[in-house]
Amino acid sequence: MDSNRNTKINSNMKIESVDFFYLRMPEVLDIGDGSQDATLVRVRAGGLEGWGECEAAPLPTIAAYVCPMSHSACKPVSYGVEGMPLNEPEDIRKIGQKVHAHSFDLLQADHTLSGIDIALWDLLGKKLGEPVYRLLGYKRAYPKTPYASQLFGDTPELTYEKAVQSRASGYRAVKFGWGPIGRDSAAVDAAHFRAAREGLGADAYLMIDLGTVWGEDVAVARERLAALKDVNAYWLEEPFTNMALGPYSKLAKSEPRVRLAAGEGCNNYVQAAAMLDYAELGFIQIDTGRIGGITPAKRVADDAAAKGITYVNHTFTSHLALSASLQPYAGVKEDVICEYPVEPKQLALDITTNKILPDENGQIVVPDAPGLGVDVQLEALKDYVVDAEIRIGGSLIYQTPAI
Amino acid sequence: MDSNRNTKINSNMKIESVDFFYLRMPEVLDIGDGSQDATLVRVRAGGLEGWGECEAAPLPTIAAYVCPMSHSACKPVSYGVEGMPLNEPEDIRKIGQKVHAHSFDLLQADHTLSGIDIALWDLLGKKLGEPVYRLLGYKRAYPKTPYASQLFGDTPELTYEKAVQSRASGYRAVKFGWGPIGRDSAAVDAAHFRAAREGLGADAYLMIDLGTVWGEDVAVARERLAALKDVNAYWLEEPFTNMALGPYSKLAKSEPRVRLAAGEGCNNYVQAAAMLDYAELGFIQIDTGRIGGITPAKRVADDAAAKGITYVNHTFTSHLALSASLQPYAGVKEDVICEYPVEPKQLALDITTNKILPDENGQIVVPDAPGLGVDVQLEALKDYVVDAEIRIGGSLIYQTPAI
Repeated sequence: MDSNRNTKINSNMKIESVDFFYLRMPEVLDIGDGSQDATLVRVRAGGLEGWGECEAAPLPTIAAYVCPMSHSACKPVSYGVEGMPLNEPEDIRKIGQKVHAHSFDLLQADHTLSGIDIALWDLLGKKLGEPVYRLLGYKRAYPKTPYASQLFGDTPELTYEKAVQSRASGYRAVKFGWGPIGRDSAAVDAAHFRAAREGLGADAYLMIDLGTVWGEDVAVARERLAALKDVNAYWLEEPFTNMALGPYSKLAKSEPRVRLAAGEGCNNYVQAAAMLDYAELGFIQIDTGRIGGITPAKRVADDAAAKGITYVNHTFTSHLALSASLQPYAGVKEDVICEYPVEPKQLALDITTNKILPDENGQIVVPDAPGLGVDVQLEALKDYVVDAEIRIGGSLIYQTPAI
Repeated sequence: MDSNRNTKINSNMKIESVDFFYLRMPEVLDIGDGSQDATLVRVRAGGLEGWGECEAAPLPTIAAYVCPMSHSACKPVSYGVEGMPLNEPEDIRKIGQKVHAHSFDLLQADHTLSGIDIALWDLLGKKLGEPVYRLLGYKRAYPKTPYASQLFGDTPELTYEKAVQSRASGYRAVKFGWGPIGRDSAAVDAAHFRAAREGLGADAYLMIDLGTVWGEDVAVARERLAALKDVNAYWLEEPFTNMALGPYSKLAKSEPRVRLAAGEGCNNYVQAAAMLDYAELGFIQIDTGRIGGITPAKRVADDAAAKGITYVNHTFTSHLALSASLQPYAGVKEDVICEYPVEPKQLALDITTNKILPDENGQIVVPDAPGLGVDVQLEALKDYVVDAEIRIGGSLIYQTPAI
């Protein structure tokens, strides 16, 4: 696409259309794999289009865009978006502010806004001929070391085998999570931790993800700290419910010290700021598809840098989502780790024609191309589109748009 | 309804049906009045029914109940509810835990859960022949002093007139909010504060509600503290975005000291706990229609009591919502203030046959009757029901149920 030409002929763009698409695999399983469906957003303005992805339940996310107004602070997200100017980064910030001012009582709004904000940055980058990270103020993008996310095996023996395989496939950083951990004794958990470390070898990064399984229970978490320290866990992720600041800070101060990672559940900037200020994290993990997009994620990255807390993306789906999640900290040289979707479902792979692949050093770097630098593969998506229809008082207020 | 008889014949109840109703006024205006529509929930079990109300956008709230599963932690709220046992309070807690465990990536889920939780307490109270506050462990319910919520006038003169009228109608506590405040100079705001105090007289409680208008801007808030102190404001409500803990705590520690009130935007227990722990509030305001229902609200009330922070309900809609919002702190004698919907839309008034009215001392008390102690007025609701229909892949997954 010739972005420069479009820049010249569209010096005063306004948002012309916002389309939501619900995509899914033929079968959605009851497993911790968020790549089984997708909520894609297409924004059009000035002859260009941008794409974004909400890491969110598609139907409620779409409903939050099209629903009737309840009152002045509970309007559909569309109210803050449609017809708004889009010519510079400040315009995207204003759209986010308008959505918050008019929809703050609509809980799902931030998840809906996330995909829109991402699509707006993609579109603006295409218009201005710049990668998003440059529009965010970064001079260059630094390579990141991708980590592979795995489920723990059902037994320590199976965890060991998985670790060996991960290392063999070239990953220098591996995260194990969910599965049996946190559901049995501390001794069983410790056996899994040791199996993971033995399989990976001493020099790989090993992260452990609890998926909030301990709720707010600091005592049960403390019982696992020594074993985590023994295997040199790089971080302990989401031992508790997102925003359980008290439990997080208590565990962070417990001996032996293990650095905590969390934040993927934050759905706006102030929640992430609260986690940075009070949870005593070593790592803040942000999903641009949930926090309201790239705009608030960049604020979090700036705050994290100022506080010496490492920023990490949270991404489990497509390379569109991956590019969006990398942009907010692409230019932070010190923050070297990134989450990388290792085994997403075919749907997630089919969303883009191009992929963000590890280089010969096993590192990845965000595309050096306008916008998000990934192209959405329209034809392939048609196989996954779910026909959805919402009627209120007999009127059709949502119908799956044409791709 | 003969609750005792039903108790005997249904010693092992399970949830049989959960029905959502979208109700609204013929016209919904762009004003700060949350009573213009409603999301009602009816739960049936063992020949009884309970009712609840979500203080939430109806369509996304319903969508969160019926949507297809996205993955193991992003299931529809229905997954955690339908068919579950309902015989004692612990069963309601388990339902909330199950919803959180299986739907924590579905942002709207807590607003959906709120009405369900309320309906479950109503139903269980009817089964056991007890008011909800007794099931929560309170021996008795104490009277509360209702405060009337008003918008500021467009000019200080109009604010003065409104204050005079409020006082004349018998209220000993009045809250002014929104409108022009926070949008002009500190001097203009101060003139409104003085007008409100002069109109009310020196002995009335005067509360000021900013409706989050200052976002995270501590400096602009500080400029108003002296004027708020001069008029002896009982509290300053929501100067900032919900969960903006840093700004709240900074303002709370600024001189002159004005006690802060906030929390209505919290959609789960841990958020409210974070506000209690770090925002340095004088008052925590909880809407049972948003926080996930009566169950988490009671936890917040217990925590607030332990910390010496005053608990206040947030209620702007029906007497069903009012009863639900009063139950969690009905037995806390010291927390004497309650929000009372003074001028709700006719829809909100028509939801229940009986009302919670001020006594001869101008005080209100939660009904001493099984469950929530208010009866839903089915016939009247028919005029407000919105026909809604959601189809996914050609299948009808939601249709407004018969009342």
